[in-house]
Amino acid sequence: MPDTWLDIAPDAHFGPSCLPYGVFSTPDRPERRVGVAIGDHVLDLGAAARAIGAPFAGAVSGASLDPLLASGRPVWEQVRAAVRSWLADPVREGDLRPHLHERAGVQLHLPFTVGDYVDFYSSEQHATNVGRIFRPDQQPLTPNWKHLPIGYHGRAGTVVPSGTPVVRPVGQRKTPADAAPLFGPSARLDIEAEVGFVVGAPSAHGERVPVASFADHVFGVFLVNDWSARDLQAWEYVPLGPFLGKSFATSVSPWVVPLQALDAARTAPPVRDPEPLEYLRDAEGEPWGLDISLEVRLNGHLLSRPPFSTMYWTPAQQLAHMTVNGASVRTGDFYASGTVSGTGRGEFGSLLELSWGGKEPVRLPGGAERSFLEDGDTVAITATAPGADGTVIGFGEVTGTVVPARL
Amino acid sequence: MPDTWLDIAPDAHFGPSCLPYGVFSTPDRPERRVGVAIGDHVLDLGAAARAIGAPFAGAVSGASLDPLLASGRPVWEQVRAAVRSWLADPVREGDLRPHLHERAGVQLHLPFTVGDYVDFYSSEQHATNVGRIFRPDQQPLTPNWKHLPIGYHGRAGTVVPSGTPVVRPVGQRKTPADAAPLFGPSARLDIEAEVGFVVGAPSAHGERVPVASFADHVFGVFLVNDWSARDLQAWEYVPLGPFLGKSFATSVSPWVVPLQALDAARTAPPVRDPEPLEYLRDAEGEPWGLDISLEVRLNGHLLSRPPFSTMYWTPAQQLAHMTVNGASVRTGDFYASGTVSGTGRGEFGSLLELSWGGKEPVRLPGGAERSFLEDGDTVAITATAPGADGTVIGFGEVTGTVVPARL
Repeated sequence: MPDTWLDIAPDAHFGPSCLPYGVFSTPDRPERRVGVAIGDHVLDLGAAARAIGAPFAGAVSGASLDPLLASGRPVWEQVRAAVRSWLADPVREGDLRPHLHERAGVQLHLPFTVGDYVDFYSSEQHATNVGRIFRPDQQPLTPNWKHLPIGYHGRAGTVVPSGTPVVRPVGQRKTPADAAPLFGPSARLDIEAEVGFVVGAPSAHGERVPVASFADHVFGVFLVNDWSARDLQAWEYVPLGPFLGKSFATSVSPWVVPLQALDAARTAPPVRDPEPLEYLRDAEGEPWGLDISLEVRLNGHLLSRPPFSTMYWTPAQQLAHMTVNGASVRTGDFYASGTVSGTGRGEFGSLLELSWGGKEPVRLPGGAERSFLEDGDTVAITATAPGADGTVIGFGEVTGTVVPARL
Repeated sequence: MPDTWLDIAPDAHFGPSCLPYGVFSTPDRPERRVGVAIGDHVLDLGAAARAIGAPFAGAVSGASLDPLLASGRPVWEQVRAAVRSWLADPVREGDLRPHLHERAGVQLHLPFTVGDYVDFYSSEQHATNVGRIFRPDQQPLTPNWKHLPIGYHGRAGTVVPSGTPVVRPVGQRKTPADAAPLFGPSARLDIEAEVGFVVGAPSAHGERVPVASFADHVFGVFLVNDWSARDLQAWEYVPLGPFLGKSFATSVSPWVVPLQALDAARTAPPVRDPEPLEYLRDAEGEPWGLDISLEVRLNGHLLSRPPFSTMYWTPAQQLAHMTVNGASVRTGDFYASGTVSGTGRGEFGSLLELSWGGKEPVRLPGGAERSFLEDGDTVAITATAPGADGTVIGFGEVTGTVVPARL
């Protein structure tokens, strides 16, 4: 990895093959700026682009990624190529050094203005597990599951950046054993380890985005923790789906990994049987399975390693499905994969599955046990993927600590 | 009705007791401006406020209602009182006349930037009808229905102003009789006649909005047509709720009637049995049932008159429920009541109910029949409510014409 004059370890998560985008501020300058993570540094991209006179300086000089997202794929490719060349060219070191900040010293913010947020449900193992736990008397997968990527709209206004404390939600719950609904803090607060995809270039209302156009619309990828109150959800979700069991908070990682960084991570998705309808078929030779390996930690203890490569529906299929009815996507709309769960406990992406509905608590070091989250618990989700030439693509982390309910 | 120097009929829908807000442009000046409807005119509110030197001119001088919504209840009351006094005071006629436009000649736009859109399901009659049609082998109301206002998030990015053509959605459908899913234009395109409520003053993340604080947060009321593709919906909606069956378009009326205009329309909601949990109880002596009478027309033919006063859950309860888990509301978030249906066919708010799932088509003048919408059909929803001193509060209309699917 000699493609930079910066001193970066060969196995660094944010090496020159990654170059994720985010929004940062510094203690001495609280205004938000667009940054690129490189090694242990953040490059102030707007300042650097202006200093160098880059033609795209306007798209990266705002307080969020919104203008860059809206500028479209040719500009995304131009910006990435320029940053790579700057970091590789020793002549540029003098131009860039003044705009590099120690990553440990910056504050990271929500990287873009969230439009609509859609949450899918595309892990066969997760959907099977949830079906078995929630509806033990029925087939675990509903009849539609293998025909379309099931999804629903989540609450955009409560999407928060990594590090935001999560207030334990309050609400109604009722099991068949309860005579009437109970009211109070959720007793089954959970996580969902997911991968998110943000739309840059919008689509027209009334027109579809085919599977093959995925990379023309989606800008990049990040991590999502879709906090879930299982007791509120179980009581409310029939017939119109999750609402308060999900809407209290959704945390996202601050660094958006551009799709171009994931070329080496593309992989064939699982065989789909039955074959999906034509609008959902993978583009010829262009599968959008992604070999992203997640890790979920509770209070520093590794709980599981969910493998994104096992997802039944790819993000390209999800986008095609979401727009097949003519619904448009806008800059800043994002969608999440659904909980990523592989085979076996070591690969499950929620406590609901890891504790099998609370029946088999997870053991933590020191003798503690967890079926669901307790106040003070901190959950962190991280991920990596293979990068170009044997490098590692890191996604950083999405983390949050549970704070007590407000009654 | 002598409270204005304008010549307005006593039974006018947009008299001095109503004064709804909207966003308009004129053929000679395409920039969007905030307007108030009065009789057959639109007052350019920003221009008038600036001419008069009103202290709130800044809040009404933008291209949408957003700044006014965000300014909070004291400003909402101040603006309304000022406009009423201007219209009543003959001395102001000279100031205002230059800023009055013929209502028939203006173009109306989406009045505010939509944040999150939540759709409730709060008509007992509608939920009962849908349960009987969709799940004939089960109890029509799910066990949770009388304990909480069921709702879900809809797609904010496809909320369109009245008059926008509605492209027939395409997608998957499958009945139990079909061996595999079919793909194509929806054959069961429907409407839902609803009432919408837009949030002005935001709430803090992690805190609830009690029932008694409804009028501190909600700015006003308008009409909603939540277009629905029943065949797509029936196949997709288990287990996570409606998605593509709804997300292709939601039409809203252009005039937002301020909550203050509806004082005389407040009425006791139906008796709730069992009594709801404490956070959902009506504030003492302050019920938020609303006596709004809707009318639904198909190609000019009156289909039904849904009575909003029959809604089981009030908008104050809906807001309290939506935030009880700590979810915040933002300026521009709006929520819709759910389809308004009263007792009997003459009061149903959807074709699904009016044709009883397609089994009993509606007869139209000239011998035509409809179970669901055909290409070229135009649906218009209008409404009125009692205003102060025997006046009528009008809501204008939300209308849309179905155009053929794009394959």
